[in-house]
Amino acid sequence: MEFDLIERIRQRTASHRDDVRLGIGDDAAVVAVPSGRELAIAVDTLVEGIHFPVGTAPADIGWKALAVNLSDLAAMGATPAWALLALTLPTQDEAFIDGLAQGFAELATPFRLALIGGDTTRGPLTVTVAVHGFTAPEEALLRSTARVGDVVMVTGTLGDAAAGLRCLAEADPSPYGELIGRLNRPTPRVSAGQALRGIATACIDVSDGLVADLGHICAQSGVGAEIDAALLPRSSAMLTHFHDADAIDFALGGGDDYELCFTVSAERAGDLAADLARLGCGATRIGRVVEGQGVRVIGLDGEALVPSRAGWNHFTA
Amino acid sequence: MEFDLIERIRQRTASHRDDVRLGIGDDAAVVAVPSGRELAIAVDTLVEGIHFPVGTAPADIGWKALAVNLSDLAAMGATPAWALLALTLPTQDEAFIDGLAQGFAELATPFRLALIGGDTTRGPLTVTVAVHGFTAPEEALLRSTARVGDVVMVTGTLGDAAAGLRCLAEADPSPYGELIGRLNRPTPRVSAGQALRGIATACIDVSDGLVADLGHICAQSGVGAEIDAALLPRSSAMLTHFHDADAIDFALGGGDDYELCFTVSAERAGDLAADLARLGCGATRIGRVVEGQGVRVIGLDGEALVPSRAGWNHFTA
Repeated sequence: MEFDLIERIRQRTASHRDDVRLGIGDDAAVVAVPSGRELAIAVDTLVEGIHFPVGTAPADIGWKALAVNLSDLAAMGATPAWALLALTLPTQDEAFIDGLAQGFAELATPFRLALIGGDTTRGPLTVTVAVHGFTAPEEALLRSTARVGDVVMVTGTLGDAAAGLRCLAEADPSPYGELIGRLNRPTPRVSAGQALRGIATACIDVSDGLVADLGHICAQSGVGAEIDAALLPRSSAMLTHFHDADAIDFALGGGDDYELCFTVSAERAGDLAADLARLGCGATRIGRVVEGQGVRVIGLDGEALVPSRAGWNHFTA
Repeated sequence: MEFDLIERIRQRTASHRDDVRLGIGDDAAVVAVPSGRELAIAVDTLVEGIHFPVGTAPADIGWKALAVNLSDLAAMGATPAWALLALTLPTQDEAFIDGLAQGFAELATPFRLALIGGDTTRGPLTVTVAVHGFTAPEEALLRSTARVGDVVMVTGTLGDAAAGLRCLAEADPSPYGELIGRLNRPTPRVSAGQALRGIATACIDVSDGLVADLGHICAQSGVGAEIDAALLPRSSAMLTHFHDADAIDFALGGGDDYELCFTVSAERAGDLAADLARLGCGATRIGRVVEGQGVRVIGLDGEALVPSRAGWNHFTA
């Protein structure tokens, strides 16, 4: 049974890869890592009602389950190669599985990502994906290597996904399609992450919220950071629908954006932003790495701003 | 938060491995595959109430979640190296997590398996483990390569886990500790699987039941198989507590045994059994590979026997 379901998903995501020696259908897959490459590996679970609202379209669930994992590879600067999919479903709902497969495949295909294994089980709706990508020795982007004096930058815009989640509660969510789309179909910054290799000093993806995630870089690098709220990049949809205070709250603590937050020397920041722009990915300077610890936010009034959300924590949220 | 939990489990399972370049704590782990080796990868999920009874000790859950995955590597003849653990928990219950970590570590440690990543989420109790092991090119044991004339063998004894599950329902399960132990703490046949490399012609682990799993070998190899019920290896606990008819039913369709079922040429079967015995693993000849398709069971009376269980299927069980 499990092969039927996983195989159906694989057929939709078919990417022929010579490095897949044995795909779905045996007790394990067998793959080959290219000579001179190391393997970056990440795993993330989405639970219905926690990581996506009940009623989310199955294609959006399939997309997002892969996106949050590709975002982890992006944050390492790795090149995606293979994925595993472990799917727990309350019932064998074929339309649901087809929808999920379609969303997964839409995101997998442009990356030539191969689905090499999986498991299907009966139970409350839960989707776990593990991804494998290639990196060169010593080339992976880490959280622990930011340096005092670096500038702090982010790709894209922040806060949209959190704003989208709030908009879902509106009686008529139709004016907020762009924000809701950012919640349901986040774009992992894979090519941007690859462009950061050898240039950015540290990197993380913004999954829990900017302050929380930049806080991980600070803690693991033994540094502090200062962020200027006025510099936080906001989408036009955000500017249209939300006031400054809400927009800044969403950007600082909302999470689920899957943009990259990275540090880079001031000298290289400009060229790097230009490189990213050529990839179609905006990048904005939002602050600096300082001595000390923790993330300090300077509000629009020039005073310290304490964010109203402390980042996403599944056990306290 | 997720690192706290996963890191706590990792500390209990600490295996220093030079091939883990970057362990838990960043967006992804980074590992190196030894030169000349390929990677076998498998993933399996356990859901409370489906794959283990509600009330199972957390240490048994931790053990079993890893065991079912190591069993997949065993069936490929691969050498375990690294694992990922995705844990969905209803509440942050520290005693539960410590127990689960202890059981996971008890099994991981002798294999020098390193926990390199994971995720913790809130939701109904579900444990997904992915494992990675090394194999040499062309050396992995497959399901698709059995040959007419081969003998069919299994390691250990069959049916104990299914018998144990039935015994759990007894008012006093204490006389059935050995059978229940086989249900809760299956032994993946890792060293046996390695000993089969280059000798067995096909291999699978018995997770869904002998008839179902041997049926996969038959279907994928384009052959049939005949099994003699009289030859099915039964444990002393099984002989003590169950009559023949039940024991044979458990052995044929019970599942959850995690023994290896393999095919081997008649000439090499004897030496192979002796090799396995030196590893402390019994192996029993139970039948033969024939032309045709499907698995035919010959009962104690010499007549064809139709098993009363069709193997474990989470969506129809």
